[in-house]
Amino acid sequence: MLKHRKSLTFRRRGERGAEAGTLTAPLESVATSLNVIAYSQGQLIEKSDVTLEDIVELRGKYKVLWVNVVGYRDLHTIENIGRYFDLHGLALEDVLNGHQRPKCEEFEKNIFLISRMVELGGHIDTKQVSMFLGEDYVLTFQEFPVDCLDPVRKRIRESRGATRRNGADYLCYAILDTILDDYFPVLEEISDRLASIENHVISHPRQKHVRQLHDMKRDLLVLRRSVWPHREMINSIIREEHSLFSDSTRLYLRDGYDHTVQLMDIVEIYREVASGLSDVYISSMSAKMNDIMKVLTVIATVFMPLSFIVGLYGMNFDTKSPWNMPELSWRFGYLWSLGLMAASVAGMSWYFYRKKWIDLAWLTRRK
Amino acid sequence: MLKHRKSLTFRRRGERGAEAGTLTAPLESVATSLNVIAYSQGQLIEKSDVTLEDIVELRGKYKVLWVNVVGYRDLHTIENIGRYFDLHGLALEDVLNGHQRPKCEEFEKNIFLISRMVELGGHIDTKQVSMFLGEDYVLTFQEFPVDCLDPVRKRIRESRGATRRNGADYLCYAILDTILDDYFPVLEEISDRLASIENHVISHPRQKHVRQLHDMKRDLLVLRRSVWPHREMINSIIREEHSLFSDSTRLYLRDGYDHTVQLMDIVEIYREVASGLSDVYISSMSAKMNDIMKVLTVIATVFMPLSFIVGLYGMNFDTKSPWNMPELSWRFGYLWSLGLMAASVAGMSWYFYRKKWIDLAWLTRRK
Amino acid sequence: MLKHRKSLTFRRRGERGAEAGTLTAPLESVATSLNVIAYSQGQLIEKSDVTLEDIVELRGKYKVLWVNVVGYRDLHTIENIGRYFDLHGLALEDVLNGHQRPKCEEFEKNIFLISRMVELGGHIDTKQVSMFLGEDYVLTFQEFPVDCLDPVRKRIRESRGATRRNGADYLCYAILDTILDDYFPVLEEISDRLASIENHVISHPRQKHVRQLHDMKRDLLVLRRSVWPHREMINSIIREEHSLFSDSTRLYLRDGYDHTVQLMDIVEIYREVASGLSDVYISSMSAKMNDIMKVLTVIATVFMPLSFIVGLYGMNFDTKSPWNMPELSWRFGYLWSLGLMAASVAGMSWYFYRKKWIDLAWLTRRK
Amino acid sequence: MLKHRKSLTFRRRGERGAEAGTLTAPLESVATSLNVIAYSQGQLIEKSDVTLEDIVELRGKYKVLWVNVVGYRDLHTIENIGRYFDLHGLALEDVLNGHQRPKCEEFEKNIFLISRMVELGGHIDTKQVSMFLGEDYVLTFQEFPVDCLDPVRKRIRESRGATRRNGADYLCYAILDTILDDYFPVLEEISDRLASIENHVISHPRQKHVRQLHDMKRDLLVLRRSVWPHREMINSIIREEHSLFSDSTRLYLRDGYDHTVQLMDIVEIYREVASGLSDVYISSMSAKMNDIMKVLTVIATVFMPLSFIVGLYGMNFDTKSPWNMPELSWRFGYLWSLGLMAASVAGMSWYFYRKKWIDLAWLTRRK
Amino acid sequence: MLKHRKSLTFRRRGERGAEAGTLTAPLESVATSLNVIAYSQGQLIEKSDVTLEDIVELRGKYKVLWVNVVGYRDLHTIENIGRYFDLHGLALEDVLNGHQRPKCEEFEKNIFLISRMVELGGHIDTKQVSMFLGEDYVLTFQEFPVDCLDPVRKRIRESRGATRRNGADYLCYAILDTILDDYFPVLEEISDRLASIENHVISHPRQKHVRQLHDMKRDLLVLRRSVWPHREMINSIIREEHSLFSDSTRLYLRDGYDHTVQLMDIVEIYREVASGLSDVYISSMSAKMNDIMKVLTVIATVFMPLSFIVGLYGMNFDTKSPWNMPELSWRFGYLWSLGLMAASVAGMSWYFYRKKWIDLAWLTRRK
Repeated sequence: MLKHRKSLTFRRRGERGAEAGTLTAPLESVATSLNVIAYSQGQLIEKSDVTLEDIVELRGKYKVLWVNVVGYRDLHTIENIGRYFDLHGLALEDVLNGHQRPKCEEFEKNIFLISRMVELGGHIDTKQVSMFLGEDYVLTFQEFPVDCLDPVRKRIRESRGATRRNGADYLCYAILDTILDDYFPVLEEISDRLASIENHVISHPRQKHVRQLHDMKRDLLVLRRSVWPHREMINSIIREEHSLFSDSTRLYLRDGYDHTVQLMDIVEIYREVASGLSDVYISSMSAKMNDIMKVLTVIATVFMPLSFIVGLYGMNFDTKSPWNMPELSWRFGYLWSLGLMAASVAGMSWYFYRKKWIDLAWLTRRK
Repeated sequence: MLKHRKSLTFRRRGERGAEAGTLTAPLESVATSLNVIAYSQGQLIEKSDVTLEDIVELRGKYKVLWVNVVGYRDLHTIENIGRYFDLHGLALEDVLNGHQRPKCEEFEKNIFLISRMVELGGHIDTKQVSMFLGEDYVLTFQEFPVDCLDPVRKRIRESRGATRRNGADYLCYAILDTILDDYFPVLEEISDRLASIENHVISHPRQKHVRQLHDMKRDLLVLRRSVWPHREMINSIIREEHSLFSDSTRLYLRDGYDHTVQLMDIVEIYREVASGLSDVYISSMSAKMNDIMKVLTVIATVFMPLSFIVGLYGMNFDTKSPWNMPELSWRFGYLWSLGLMAASVAGMSWYFYRKKWIDLAWLTRRK
Repeated sequence: MLKHRKSLTFRRRGERGAEAGTLTAPLESVATSLNVIAYSQGQLIEKSDVTLEDIVELRGKYKVLWVNVVGYRDLHTIENIGRYFDLHGLALEDVLNGHQRPKCEEFEKNIFLISRMVELGGHIDTKQVSMFLGEDYVLTFQEFPVDCLDPVRKRIRESRGATRRNGADYLCYAILDTILDDYFPVLEEISDRLASIENHVISHPRQKHVRQLHDMKRDLLVLRRSVWPHREMINSIIREEHSLFSDSTRLYLRDGYDHTVQLMDIVEIYREVASGLSDVYISSMSAKMNDIMKVLTVIATVFMPLSFIVGLYGMNFDTKSPWNMPELSWRFGYLWSLGLMAASVAGMSWYFYRKKWIDLAWLTRRK
Repeated sequence: MLKHRKSLTFRRRGERGAEAGTLTAPLESVATSLNVIAYSQGQLIEKSDVTLEDIVELRGKYKVLWVNVVGYRDLHTIENIGRYFDLHGLALEDVLNGHQRPKCEEFEKNIFLISRMVELGGHIDTKQVSMFLGEDYVLTFQEFPVDCLDPVRKRIRESRGATRRNGADYLCYAILDTILDDYFPVLEEISDRLASIENHVISHPRQKHVRQLHDMKRDLLVLRRSVWPHREMINSIIREEHSLFSDSTRLYLRDGYDHTVQLMDIVEIYREVASGLSDVYISSMSAKMNDIMKVLTVIATVFMPLSFIVGLYGMNFDTKSPWNMPELSWRFGYLWSLGLMAASVAGMSWYFYRKKWIDLAWLTRRK
Repeated sequence: MLKHRKSLTFRRRGERGAEAGTLTAPLESVATSLNVIAYSQGQLIEKSDVTLEDIVELRGKYKVLWVNVVGYRDLHTIENIGRYFDLHGLALEDVLNGHQRPKCEEFEKNIFLISRMVELGGHIDTKQVSMFLGEDYVLTFQEFPVDCLDPVRKRIRESRGATRRNGADYLCYAILDTILDDYFPVLEEISDRLASIENHVISHPRQKHVRQLHDMKRDLLVLRRSVWPHREMINSIIREEHSLFSDSTRLYLRDGYDHTVQLMDIVEIYREVASGLSDVYISSMSAKMNDIMKVLTVIATVFMPLSFIVGLYGMNFDTKSPWNMPELSWRFGYLWSLGLMAASVAGMSWYFYRKKWIDLAWLTRRK
């Protein structure tokens, strides 16, 4: 149902007509908690449920500071963070709103990015992740605690790979890349569902497949609505000269850009396949209808003449007149009438067989 | 109905072939009245039903002067306002016309903007709001008194937020933003309606749903026709260097631009969903038709052989000949015929059951 | 019918493979006649059926000279005019051809514009008006005498408005604007027709509505084919720096451009509505078919068992055997059989009622 | 059929994976023959079946040398021509291939153009014409002898018009223009066919119209595939500064460009009309189906109750019991039963008439 | 089925959320083997199953070194090659992934190209070929041993044509060109299949054709997904100034670009034809349904009145009353009833014949 997908509904501000930049906590949000991971190539510190003061203290001591803000209930804390890190009021409003398209906006002291994590439940939906990239920090804001960023955390902890060697811009890329990486298994899931619907629609079309296709088309709309602006966002980072993104990170982003192109490609192909299946459904239905009508017509055409014949010899004309139904008193009248019927059936069958309406394979097939 | 939507009908000038720039009052317009709000950060004055002289007097004493002109019946007053504020004749003609697309045109001394307020009645429609932005004033023109700008007025009065601190360009943005803000609840309403139609179309398709979908598609066309040029208008203000718009206001407009993009996104998605539902309707109908035809065929196929058998033994052949219907005088002739019928029914049922035409679930379902 | 619309047929040159620039009079053209209106702000002279010599004499004495050439039968006159005003051979060929898209081409000494007047008959069609704009003259060429330019003539005569104050470029704009103005009532007419078809298609779909919709779609194609290049033409005049168009006239053309955008908007919306109505038609038809089939199925399902029962007791088994149809000799055998039938009807009715196939509202509705 | 249209099939090189620039004669090509027309404004020489030596001798003596090469069987000759005129190997490969899109490529010493002539047989197809334009020569290559360039030859011979006065670039334009000119009668033919299908589809839809529409859509695809790149080709010549094209010829090409735009316009409109007709066909079919089903339903609904009544009084209940079918022994029993039937027919007829299912006009119409 | 096409499924990295640049061998890959062809214009050496050391030794001694790496099981070897030739980690990751779109990326010391070979089995699929072009070498990577590059190898061996004369950039072009060349026979195969489906759909539509069309549409999507980025890739090489591509090779690439345009053209046309055939199928089905329904209706309409008449004279009214069924005791009662029936049949037949429902041609046609 339309209303159950967050990313297709939306609200703007708490109060209708409120001033731009007004912060309002979303109704169902959880209590705000701050987690921090700070690291240089050799050092690493990781703390949960810290306060802003802890963060202020950590800052500058490590090459990269990653603050993850979860839950928007405590507006005051968020405003303080905003003030400390020079976050623009309009950006913070977008963070809290939760229904923004992925985008990238440059402010004086930091870059604001919105991305969307994909969630695969009964329906596919997406959840906003907001990021601020500064010289030496990355802030991520999420409304709910569960996220898909554990692989990034693990790589930082294990001091494996490029993450620890590079700065905040690479961390920002790594987060984006991990979020996009999660779209692939979702598309594989959709691919499986499509293949399953496909098999059924062609052999046993049922009305529930129409509903499933309709839902799948909407899932694909949700995905497209999320992937497309991701692509534009990454492209704008690659093209424009943001001083906060180094050339080597931009090379990695080019790779991320390729992934968004690939995702769009697949989403579009699945949309076309799903559309095609709707047509296949209609065609199958109309073919089945033809089959049903042929059966009815053949039955009616065979039995109506028979019924006529048996009715004929059931008439009660007075057989005293030699002109009235002499067949009734023939010695072989009954056999004559049976022969008449057999001839009628044979004639009709031959005719339908010649017209290819009677399809022996179809008659005996188990369907 | 097409004619009932103002924004899909149109007129151009009062008289066919009239000169460009000719002012003609719309037929159904109300008497012209002027309301003014003038404010600096610390001062505020608000007056209703003022004359042009009052306005002239107020001008220059406050940082921002907002004149709201309602009703176009008194052409003379409007011409006077036009002359005093240096409004171009073609712009004034567009104001009175009331069927313009949202747009932004720069003149020598002011910027002319057209926006459209959304109205949610039985059908969705939009109403033109025209604005002139000058160095220290904003003029708004509306054909009818009811508008959606009260939140702006309230914010000015309460001296809350950025509106009072900023100049006329910010007021102009605030008005635009409030107008666009009103599109969101309308889209939520459409979302609800779509979800309701969706549920019905899949389970109980009725012809009225076709009509509702058709109406909804037109509602969405009306919205798209209004939102799309809003987006272009705001984009042109952001891109071009209008000296009347400050950099900070342009930052706010970037936010407004995002909202138009979001609106377009949602409108397009709803259009696709509505189109998809038309297909679902056709599919459901054809599935239902198949069900109906199966019932008819099964009934006909079961009862036609039965009717044939009972007709057969209703024939009046003279039973004096041993060849004529000997079954009639058998001791268990009647039972034999009943057995024949039972066998026929059983055979047919088994055949249809094997063909999956008889669907027990369907037969007992309450639908 | 396709062939009846001039603007969808076309010819190129009189003779197949003729040289570019070859002038050929169209077959059905009328005799060529020249009318002239010459005016400055204070002076006005208007003459019908003049010769080229009259024109040569008038030229230079007035600020603007407007020569209207009607009918292309006299090729010699047209060639002379071409030579006197330095009109390019390819342009003159386009004038005579009559099937050109609206366009604007700059030549050394004048600008060549093609516009198309709309005609509202049974079908909508468009008629070419060709114009040459020079320093101090406007030449208009039309194949047939009836045109929609009388409002322009009237404004010149009455010395009203801007036309008399401005130069030839403004006259050229005024003509274009008047031509475009005429598209609006045509679109209102289409709007009325669409609304009427819409009402019928939903309540009483008939095959003639399919034909009407098909015709309307073509009318809209004809309009789009005319309006779209008008828009491009005006846009190119606004953008490029034609020395013959003054800045103030260009401001008026911006207004004309808005009108073409609005026209395109409406044409596209009507095209979508008309397409939607085709789908509504199919949906209505399939809903009606379902209704019809339900009636047939209900009737067949109710009466076939009845016919079976009455046939059963019409069998002629010898009632001497106690096993043969004992019901026939029961005292209440007839009532028993009637009861059986009533039970069958009641059962079937209840079943169909529960399946919602029997819709009391539908049965009693007058349709 | 798809395979019968040359321009929808294709081959690349003689041998799979052959080197680019390998020349292979097409299988069904005819023997190579060279024809030459050389002219200055006052001089003209025309020779058939010449050798390369003849051409070398003629070159330089006349302003323009037009060599028409027909048939590709003699690869050696073609290679010699290529060597003498400095034709690039890849260009010659494209010449021989015969399935290229219209295009224009500039080489060091000449410009290579590919155009396609239209052929109107049962199906519409196009045939490649390749051209090389040099300083003082035009080479044309055609696979088969029949072409549409006779009007150009005639104009050269008759020394009429601009062709003789201008250089090789104008000849090149004249050839292109003549080829494009030939598309117009083909479109008129399609217009006639469409109008004819249209009339039939609405009144008497037959399955052959579906096939005809399907073929026509493909004809239009073939045309679009040829016209569109013509347009791009001419546009690129106009835009870019090829030193071989003079300014005055470029003016003529602007005219040719207009013609391609017009052709595209018409092709697109016809494609939309043809698509619309497919929908009209489906709508007509479903309307006819409704009519048929109504007839069946009315017949069944009228006769089933009648059959029931006559069956009822054909039951053999023992009339000794006063409860068993007393009607049978009534004096007016038969009349009573006839009355019952008449009432049933009247009731049903009235009901269907009120539902508008029985349409007197339809019943008596000859269809 | 969707899952069976490699190019529509995809995986990204071995481990979910793995770091960018992590190399993981695909599960089903074969053991890595290296083959090398090194040549100058006069020299040629060709070795199979060489080691990296052999390659290091050969390098620099020949103008062009072509190393073909097959099978990805031995990650260590691939990493060594990457280190020796300065291949970027992200590029190598794309090589191993195998599901990339064709693209071209420039790195410091080499250009990375991805192309896709087409495979024609039951379904059409594509297989990734990755290439690195350096100053004096071309590396090609393929997951499986079978490829379509033998024509290139043969041309090198035979010292035929331009390949031996030119450098590594030409070899790179030759490989690309040979890969693209292989798409043409695949499209011819599709053309044949389409023509065959077309013939059947119009004369004998069967449900399997719907499935075949659905599959073919997907084949065309697979092709489009591969051809389109090839085109973009080649275009970007032509446009941008890669120092590794010489001007003469760029001329050849222009030829390759034309081929991709032609491929896209054909793919798009086939997609439209396939879509059109789906509509033709539906139309044919609905025409057939009309035919079937007409037969049923005619049969029912002819026999129902007959059954009524014979039932009528089978009623058992007591003929003692002169008002009860006097026909029964008429001398020619039976003949009278037969006459009645004959009249009914004749009337109905004439009526249907006049309505054109009984189509003699159709009745006798063998279908």
